[in-house]
Amino acid sequence: MANEIYAQYHAYLKKIKDLNGATALLHWDNEVNAPKNGSAFRAQQLATLSGIAHELSTGSELKELLDALWEKKEELTAEQLRNVELSRSDYARATKVPTEFVKNMTKARAASFQAWLKARKENDFQIFKEPLKALIALKREEAELKGYEDHPYDALLEEYEKGARVKDLDVLFKDVREQLVAFAKELREKGQATDSAFLSKKYDKDAQWDLGLKLLKQMGYDFDSGRQDVSAHPFTTTFSPTDVRVTTRIDEHNPMSMIGSCIHEGGHALYEQGLLDENYGLPLGSADSLGIHESQSRLWENNVGLSQVYWEANWSELSSTFSEQLEGVSVEHFYKAINQVKPNLIRIEADELHYHLHVLVRYELEKGLMEGSIEVDDLEEMWNAKYKEFLGVDVPSAAKGVLQDVHWSEGLVGYFPTYSLGSFYAAQFFAKASEEIDNLEELIRKGETQPLLNWLREKIHYHGRRYNASELCVEITGEPLNLSYFMDYVRAKYGAIYGL
Amino acid sequence: MANEIYAQYHAYLKKIKDLNGATALLHWDNEVNAPKNGSAFRAQQLATLSGIAHELSTGSELKELLDALWEKKEELTAEQLRNVELSRSDYARATKVPTEFVKNMTKARAASFQAWLKARKENDFQIFKEPLKALIALKREEAELKGYEDHPYDALLEEYEKGARVKDLDVLFKDVREQLVAFAKELREKGQATDSAFLSKKYDKDAQWDLGLKLLKQMGYDFDSGRQDVSAHPFTTTFSPTDVRVTTRIDEHNPMSMIGSCIHEGGHALYEQGLLDENYGLPLGSADSLGIHESQSRLWENNVGLSQVYWEANWSELSSTFSEQLEGVSVEHFYKAINQVKPNLIRIEADELHYHLHVLVRYELEKGLMEGSIEVDDLEEMWNAKYKEFLGVDVPSAAKGVLQDVHWSEGLVGYFPTYSLGSFYAAQFFAKASEEIDNLEELIRKGETQPLLNWLREKIHYHGRRYNASELCVEITGEPLNLSYFMDYVRAKYGAIYGL
Repeated sequence: MANEIYAQYHAYLKKIKDLNGATALLHWDNEVNAPKNGSAFRAQQLATLSGIAHELSTGSELKELLDALWEKKEELTAEQLRNVELSRSDYARATKVPTEFVKNMTKARAASFQAWLKARKENDFQIFKEPLKALIALKREEAELKGYEDHPYDALLEEYEKGARVKDLDVLFKDVREQLVAFAKELREKGQATDSAFLSKKYDKDAQWDLGLKLLKQMGYDFDSGRQDVSAHPFTTTFSPTDVRVTTRIDEHNPMSMIGSCIHEGGHALYEQGLLDENYGLPLGSADSLGIHESQSRLWENNVGLSQVYWEANWSELSSTFSEQLEGVSVEHFYKAINQVKPNLIRIEADELHYHLHVLVRYELEKGLMEGSIEVDDLEEMWNAKYKEFLGVDVPSAAKGVLQDVHWSEGLVGYFPTYSLGSFYAAQFFAKASEEIDNLEELIRKGETQPLLNWLREKIHYHGRRYNASELCVEITGEPLNLSYFMDYVRAKYGAIYGL
Repeated sequence: MANEIYAQYHAYLKKIKDLNGATALLHWDNEVNAPKNGSAFRAQQLATLSGIAHELSTGSELKELLDALWEKKEELTAEQLRNVELSRSDYARATKVPTEFVKNMTKARAASFQAWLKARKENDFQIFKEPLKALIALKREEAELKGYEDHPYDALLEEYEKGARVKDLDVLFKDVREQLVAFAKELREKGQATDSAFLSKKYDKDAQWDLGLKLLKQMGYDFDSGRQDVSAHPFTTTFSPTDVRVTTRIDEHNPMSMIGSCIHEGGHALYEQGLLDENYGLPLGSADSLGIHESQSRLWENNVGLSQVYWEANWSELSSTFSEQLEGVSVEHFYKAINQVKPNLIRIEADELHYHLHVLVRYELEKGLMEGSIEVDDLEEMWNAKYKEFLGVDVPSAAKGVLQDVHWSEGLVGYFPTYSLGSFYAAQFFAKASEEIDNLEELIRKGETQPLLNWLREKIHYHGRRYNASELCVEITGEPLNLSYFMDYVRAKYGAIYGL
């Protein structure tokens, strides 16, 4: 009897997943293929599909199924029970916010997004100020509606990183503030830079494209269950575990842009391809938090793709493809050149070390906005002061400062920390993988990354949402997230590169 | 008040159209992009989306809106009233068939499709016989459920060609049987063939592709509201009037395959791009019957694209692109060569003249199956006899005979006649266009087809489903469909080409 209801419940969730897969395809097509005039009707089609998916996710039929299963929870397997628990929690969260509030939020987001576009274009934070105030007020209201124990920001973090709490993030970002800021300063002041001018020579587009495909294939991306295309901003999208697509961009004068995006998106895609077919639609068939997702992309992009052993594996391919551009460059020189770090103004252009100082700024500001200790009126000034303090840079304009990210204009508050969590989890996971896989470094040096992928599959991909991120971290590494793994990694790596 | 309900009704229909547009994209992507392993989940996603669209199309909310509008029909404009009438008729038709019957039909179709695949592969009609019998029995039942006045086949024709009736088609196909069969025989016996061996030389794929894009652009296909890709079988698909895509195939040893498919699909696409944006979702925003759709593709493909003046317009382009292959070939020779006709076994490989003899066979068989004068047991034998009688060919195998088309295995009974209706409408429309547009032939000779497109837009595209096909024919040409226009066209054209 419970099994029958469970089957109905699974079928119901599959329907939602089908709609989400179709929605993802509409988005993908919009970025990759759609003709100029197609976007107006496409936007309407997207709204219709997500509207139907939302109705299903908050519908009373789902509630009845979940209640019926809960009554018979003793009859469920552990895995079934975990799915039902997660669905109950998703349902409760999705239905906590009244329709009227959702409508107000949608309007406020549209207004603030338009204001942000204008403000950034005209380089004037004043234009964005009032709409942002309205939106932040709504986000505070949302936090109250959704509920929290300690801190209103917790209620928003939960959206992207189930289980993440200010009390833990405060510890983490205090370490970032004390240790990483100091280490970055040390590098700036005492480090020896390496010449990387050869990286901005001209690298043929087609040859870059072919190289990107080879690197994806080498890391285990399955082209029978996906494809790569070109888009303005690289992204990964999932229609099902057997159709996970990536996109890349190609800059003729910066081959590391394509290489980095291929490996990064490849890391996301391996996670999605590694979810189990039989769990399609169920919570256990979905990727865990954004932080864990990002840990997969960053682990491949940075811990693997920016290592010297990785380039030793691929050096003959690379140096024969671009023999002219790399004439006289050794693999050691190449490795140092692609790992030059420097404080900068724009988050998405930051290196793997300074990146987290950008996130630190946003974390402190968002938290303050949510608890009411910071007002939107003071945001630009505080932004600039924190950039000076943490990165040592002067912000010359709002467009290159507080207006650079789209997130706040779209109401995405609580999202930024997941980017840093990704790298920190990646460092901790990679350290564990290096312990548990014999000669991991040697394997990567030979281009054999399958054992690493197998390890990630077993430890992370196959589980979907079984554990939340912090539980998963303990499961895998035996301890909660700890910045020391990331600090050890950057100290060893950049200490050597910069001769400290 | 009526306007308010009308707005709700339009919003409701837009939602269905949005789902259908998304479904079309999933299909398109499947043909054009999808990786090998993606198809299982894709099939499920397609089923979910069409299921939701079907629920909406047969839902009680729609009925209530339509009833409310019908009560206030005096307040509606003529155009609004026409939409409501058509929606009422669509709704009535869609809800005439009980859910249980739909399920049985779906099962029977799946079984007969699988049997057909096997039967065709093993070249054995016996394998297909029983599943087809079951399916035909259900189609007879469907006709009773849907209702008809004179002939059960009418109830099925209505699905593809609203208003088409056996009593009219009998007249038409009697003319085909008497006049076209005789003319084809005359050509076979007395005509002078032209050497067309140069058409099977090697024509570079990329050059063919570029040529296809130019031809599409020349005929007025809007690449800002569409795109062309390659697929195994060419098709046109519509996501919205501002995103109508075509596909083509390229055969290195048969450039007319690509050229024909580009112009044919381009004709379908011009129709869809010509539907009015403001009617999106409404009946008047949808293309009319399949016959009228096919009239647009055939008019461009045959009446325009296989004419001598069309190739005079494009001769310098063609002969410079393929100078080697076309050395010593004049435009007159080319024109004759691409218009060589010959009876053959396979419908989809037939020329524009013999094509209708293939359809005649199917029309007579389908009609007989539906009225019960022909049994599935006799189908193969009757098929072969009719091919001998009408086309003068011996059918060597079931695979090249009665098993060649997928249609019956999928329950598509009543579809075939629309292919011929398309060509016959095209001839009648083109004759009228030639009367009403000054110097149409001269314009085409100069590559100026915009006046013809404008005429089609005004007469056909902008109206959507305002008139059914036979009404539309009378509106445009002043008389019902009449084979004499097609006979005049083929007699003049092939008489000259074959020196009769």
